[in-house]
Amino acid sequence: MSSCTVILQLICPDRSGLVSELAGWIAQHGGNILHADHHTDSGAKLFLSRIEWNLEGFDLSRSATRISLNTLATRLEGRATLSFSDELPRVAIFVSKQSHCLSDLLWRTRNGELPMTVPLIISNHMDLEPLCKQFNVPFHCIPNSSNKKLLAEESILNLLKVNNIDIVVLAKYMQILSKNFLERFPIVINIHHSFLPAFKGAQPYHRAWDRGVKLIGATAHYVTEVLDDGPIIEQTIAHVSHRDEVQDLIRKGRDTERMALARALRLHLRRQVMVYRGRTAVFV
Amino acid sequence: MSSCTVILQLICPDRSGLVSELAGWIAQHGGNILHADHHTDSGAKLFLSRIEWNLEGFDLSRSATRISLNTLATRLEGRATLSFSDELPRVAIFVSKQSHCLSDLLWRTRNGELPMTVPLIISNHMDLEPLCKQFNVPFHCIPNSSNKKLLAEESILNLLKVNNIDIVVLAKYMQILSKNFLERFPIVINIHHSFLPAFKGAQPYHRAWDRGVKLIGATAHYVTEVLDDGPIIEQTIAHVSHRDEVQDLIRKGRDTERMALARALRLHLRRQVMVYRGRTAVFV
Amino acid sequence: MSSCTVILQLICPDRSGLVSELAGWIAQHGGNILHADHHTDSGAKLFLSRIEWNLEGFDLSRSATRISLNTLATRLEGRATLSFSDELPRVAIFVSKQSHCLSDLLWRTRNGELPMTVPLIISNHMDLEPLCKQFNVPFHCIPNSSNKKLLAEESILNLLKVNNIDIVVLAKYMQILSKNFLERFPIVINIHHSFLPAFKGAQPYHRAWDRGVKLIGATAHYVTEVLDDGPIIEQTIAHVSHRDEVQDLIRKGRDTERMALARALRLHLRRQVMVYRGRTAVFV
Amino acid sequence: MSSCTVILQLICPDRSGLVSELAGWIAQHGGNILHADHHTDSGAKLFLSRIEWNLEGFDLSRSATRISLNTLATRLEGRATLSFSDELPRVAIFVSKQSHCLSDLLWRTRNGELPMTVPLIISNHMDLEPLCKQFNVPFHCIPNSSNKKLLAEESILNLLKVNNIDIVVLAKYMQILSKNFLERFPIVINIHHSFLPAFKGAQPYHRAWDRGVKLIGATAHYVTEVLDDGPIIEQTIAHVSHRDEVQDLIRKGRDTERMALARALRLHLRRQVMVYRGRTAVFV
Repeated sequence: MSSCTVILQLICPDRSGLVSELAGWIAQHGGNILHADHHTDSGAKLFLSRIEWNLEGFDLSRSATRISLNTLATRLEGRATLSFSDELPRVAIFVSKQSHCLSDLLWRTRNGELPMTVPLIISNHMDLEPLCKQFNVPFHCIPNSSNKKLLAEESILNLLKVNNIDIVVLAKYMQILSKNFLERFPIVINIHHSFLPAFKGAQPYHRAWDRGVKLIGATAHYVTEVLDDGPIIEQTIAHVSHRDEVQDLIRKGRDTERMALARALRLHLRRQVMVYRGRTAVFV
Repeated sequence: MSSCTVILQLICPDRSGLVSELAGWIAQHGGNILHADHHTDSGAKLFLSRIEWNLEGFDLSRSATRISLNTLATRLEGRATLSFSDELPRVAIFVSKQSHCLSDLLWRTRNGELPMTVPLIISNHMDLEPLCKQFNVPFHCIPNSSNKKLLAEESILNLLKVNNIDIVVLAKYMQILSKNFLERFPIVINIHHSFLPAFKGAQPYHRAWDRGVKLIGATAHYVTEVLDDGPIIEQTIAHVSHRDEVQDLIRKGRDTERMALARALRLHLRRQVMVYRGRTAVFV
Repeated sequence: MSSCTVILQLICPDRSGLVSELAGWIAQHGGNILHADHHTDSGAKLFLSRIEWNLEGFDLSRSATRISLNTLATRLEGRATLSFSDELPRVAIFVSKQSHCLSDLLWRTRNGELPMTVPLIISNHMDLEPLCKQFNVPFHCIPNSSNKKLLAEESILNLLKVNNIDIVVLAKYMQILSKNFLERFPIVINIHHSFLPAFKGAQPYHRAWDRGVKLIGATAHYVTEVLDDGPIIEQTIAHVSHRDEVQDLIRKGRDTERMALARALRLHLRRQVMVYRGRTAVFV
Repeated sequence: MSSCTVILQLICPDRSGLVSELAGWIAQHGGNILHADHHTDSGAKLFLSRIEWNLEGFDLSRSATRISLNTLATRLEGRATLSFSDELPRVAIFVSKQSHCLSDLLWRTRNGELPMTVPLIISNHMDLEPLCKQFNVPFHCIPNSSNKKLLAEESILNLLKVNNIDIVVLAKYMQILSKNFLERFPIVINIHHSFLPAFKGAQPYHRAWDRGVKLIGATAHYVTEVLDDGPIIEQTIAHVSHRDEVQDLIRKGRDTERMALARALRLHLRRQVMVYRGRTAVFV
């Protein structure tokens, strides 16, 4: 459990013999496969694979593994990514004023549920600085009002670069990232407080209450430049009744939000998610 | 359990003393309350109440109860409905080609889960006639193509009238009822195969697959003239993954659809649903 | 929402006119009922009622209300409890080494989801002292090994008395309270990490894994002197598969545990739970 | 979708190179893998694999495939089973008086959700004969009272043999099969109306009601000679409240029972279930 594993994610055009080829490559170098998941999207004629094996006993160095895999991926006309479980992703968490997702993520990280490090937290408000202090995580307040959005995003991008950030998590960050930002930093996970595609945009709980729904939801998804439209990783729901006011939906929603975000992030960190054609394959 | 109960549903402007007034009226006539549920919508300043008591021991006749209640409702500036549990509603079920909801409803009716009688089933196709025969329910095929929609609806309205139908249930009836129809027969319950308000309209499973959702849903609701916009009674969901094709969504959806529709209909039949301001209060 | 409400809980032998009598008493003193829930246990011939009304406009003082209600309850041969929503219960939380329930409860209290104050936290280990400090709650470490259990319980009972504690919550307190303790302090809520009555006692996740279950659960219940046998307030579940090791069950279980305990405690604090004959009625 | 696939299930001691070896064998014969799932039980040091590929293009005949696979399995010191998706298992359904599971299974079979044929239905009561007639399935009534249990089981075993039955499904068959029966016909799937291991044995709903649980469940499992103790395939749950009488638990339970049984049977029929060491791996 504690020893390091290698995780391969490959996506390429489907054809016969792919599993054999991948497994053969790993076996030939002494790798003992722990998990192997494959999926064929028959409509798109694509093959997706996630294989995880023990680093111990594998006879290639990390860099040699990368080179060998790239050669293989090129031959298969696909793209591959390689990860090592002991190389923890560096995650920046963006927040505004609400603490429920942030405190949950920090608690889970400390508790070992989320294999990542959190070098910085960015907010457009000061409210959550004390919470960050409790967890000893550097907190940066970068106001992001409409007229200084460009400047704010430049500052943020700079911080991400300086801190070698791999992933941005929007844990109730009530700002929309620009197209420019996403082009320069594309790996962003967001939690939206509705069951997408219902109630895109602002104030989903108010609109859910108006519509008289009997279930509310939360959606964790990758961010794209179209609002609330990126590939969905995880969705959770909660039951509501006529007795619930908007405030109750918000309260119940906090639990669905933090569950959906924590699960999605864990899946991403463990490289169980693959994105293709605007959707995700989640290998559980 | 088997003896007859009286069910009162009242909606009126909120003020002090309403529960006392209603309970007092019932007690004064010897009624023993079995269930009493009240809800105050503080935004709308409305009071909603559902009270159920034993007919045995109640000293008013059914007609006298109606008169006495109407007097009370008038005084409270509200509207009240009265039901007796041994007067089974007469329900017409509308279907097209799919059998899953119809067979489920007929089986539950026979099994005693749905307190209703089904004097007729109407379809725009012949496919489900054999199933209706198995359950000894009269089947009427009324084709409903666009150019004869008006005529078809007239025939249907006539059948509803002749058969003294109280409620229409659209159990996968792939036709839209006209505004005229709904004005003349307003109590219609529909099952829509999505988690409303997501994926209103046609082919929700195809669109859900395209969007890459991780949960699909079904919504049972009262029909209004705006498509898929009526008051929601019940919503159910099922988990899906990237391995599910559109056909799998349809298959899994059948279970969520029949569960949502059966539950909603049972709630309606037991007078546990009250509609107001485009939404429902469901007393469970 | 913010104004004070009065909550009446009554249990008495069932007979006609009870709702009328209670509602009449409230109306006569100018009370405007916000919520009224009644339940008749026909097997036990018992009537249970929870009524909540606005203190504003009610013409009896708090003490006069108590006296008047006691007179009423005596006449009905029942027992009644009266609560005022602005009188926050004082809750002592007992923990051992695990932080997930404690941090969740403290966070929800701070966030306004749990209407209570936490004057002290008691543990048989030092591990969670830093967490308590972060939330500024006094922490008392009282080791509770088998040979000094009696002494430890005396110290604890004394602390509860000195701090005027109303409720004890066992938030993963891995000790069994003695019969003597429970007789002297009977209002104790526990979280058990299984779907009771399955897997009573120690190491439920290990035993669940051995049995190969596909769902795990958590149960929040009142504590009685028979282990894991008290009235159940709330149960939650999580899906597991053959891929989950015992450690994964424990990890997933943490989420079901903290959800079940938080919900149960909120229900109790809002006086939505009534206990009778070894079971609960939960008015939601 | 409609074309025939080959499904391999293998269990053997874990060692390096197994995925490669299996995938290599399939690739070498021209098989195009559609799904491949592997699981390593690290405690038991066992490797489990399910691979599904298109028959079209595979260059071995069915019998040659069997021989080649057996050679492979022997070398790996494991056991393998081979299935072809167009060879529908022959299933005997055993019932007593309740129809909900039987009618559900027959409806799903007709509807194409369950890839099987049902050559006979066996009951110890006459009640469900009309339902079987509606679906044109031969019905055999074999009374099974205690004093003629042996004789009844002989008759049943004979019927299973004559009809070449592959699987027995106990769809609310309120009889316990003897050890002798199970030794001679071991593939039996049962639906138990509780969340096992809670409430083994008789009258689980009555006992669940007595205990005051907030969730009820159903468990589909393989039958072993120890009552309600076999490997679990699927578990489902439903919420209950203090308002639910035993009869309501039974009613709600019918839905959880038929869902759990239908899902478990579908998983088994599609060879997604592997049994080992008293538990199941379910590849979904």
